[in-house]
Amino acid sequence: MTSAAHPHETRIDADPALPTIRIVREFDAPPERVFRAWTDPGLVAQWLGPEDLTMKIDVWEARTGGCYRYSAVSGGETIASFYGSFHEVRPDSRLVQTFTYEGAPDGVFLETAVFEPLGAGRTRVTGLSVTDTIAARDALIASGMERGVVEGYAKLDALLATG
Amino acid sequence: MTSAAHPHETRIDADPALPTIRIVREFDAPPERVFRAWTDPGLVAQWLGPEDLTMKIDVWEARTGGCYRYSAVSGGETIASFYGSFHEVRPDSRLVQTFTYEGAPDGVFLETAVFEPLGAGRTRVTGLSVTDTIAARDALIASGMERGVVEGYAKLDALLATG
Repeated sequence: MTSAAHPHETRIDADPALPTIRIVREFDAPPERVFRAWTDPGLVAQWLGPEDLTMKIDVWEARTGGCYRYSAVSGGETIASFYGSFHEVRPDSRLVQTFTYEGAPDGVFLETAVFEPLGAGRTRVTGLSVTDTIAARDALIASGMERGVVEGYAKLDALLATG
Repeated sequence: MTSAAHPHETRIDADPALPTIRIVREFDAPPERVFRAWTDPGLVAQWLGPEDLTMKIDVWEARTGGCYRYSAVSGGETIASFYGSFHEVRPDSRLVQTFTYEGAPDGVFLETAVFEPLGAGRTRVTGLSVTDTIAARDALIASGMERGVVEGYAKLDALLATG
């Protein structure tokens, strides 16, 4: 499963044998700026999620042992909420979080994002999500997460381009 | 992989295809008492880990969004520390945590424990741990976790028997 998005391709791959999803994306900014866009709630609210939804950040304690919660808002109404913990925040290089859709709290994902400097002020972010079963992984993909990721990263490109 | 321990058997199974470990154990106490032994740090310190080590609980915020850290102490010296987050604490029924050995912080496990009433004041606890790769799962098993689990649960039997 690969989605092309101008100017950067977002690669989203579901492992055939393991209950994982790998997402690889490059950004035209150095790791410290990309990392900050993931950890500063004022910035996260500007890019997270698909184009047609607004993300309201309820809690975003981006520190090792912290937690977060955010809601997707459409036309002034909350249509879905998500929460989890920050297992590890390793500055400018690694984020490990849990993730749950509040409407299905038995489904939990462990998500790792690695921020890798590419030189020339660019960064590759590799995300790996794992859950208990292949079926639960496939359900997340079927929920439309791919569009949310691709459109969110396009918004992040625009945010990074503003300096 | 099954370990027999009197009076209750601890079943520990590594899935052949998925990077998971399933641990099933019954206890002679109702779910609320078994759950409390998992969430009250003063009780956790009395049973967690193998017989020959003392567990020092540094932090144990057993609430949704909380975190924990504990150290294994032998002869007055800290020999290993572990930390993680409480993704969800659902009273008397479900605990979801992350887990990392501080000496290898890139290895992270997502652990779910379900507390199921069996009637007659008994409880079955089913634990499921998942990580990114089969190799990482196998490394945890090779670390001696099985002995720690079996001996820890025997200490928990004794603690529950005291009322």
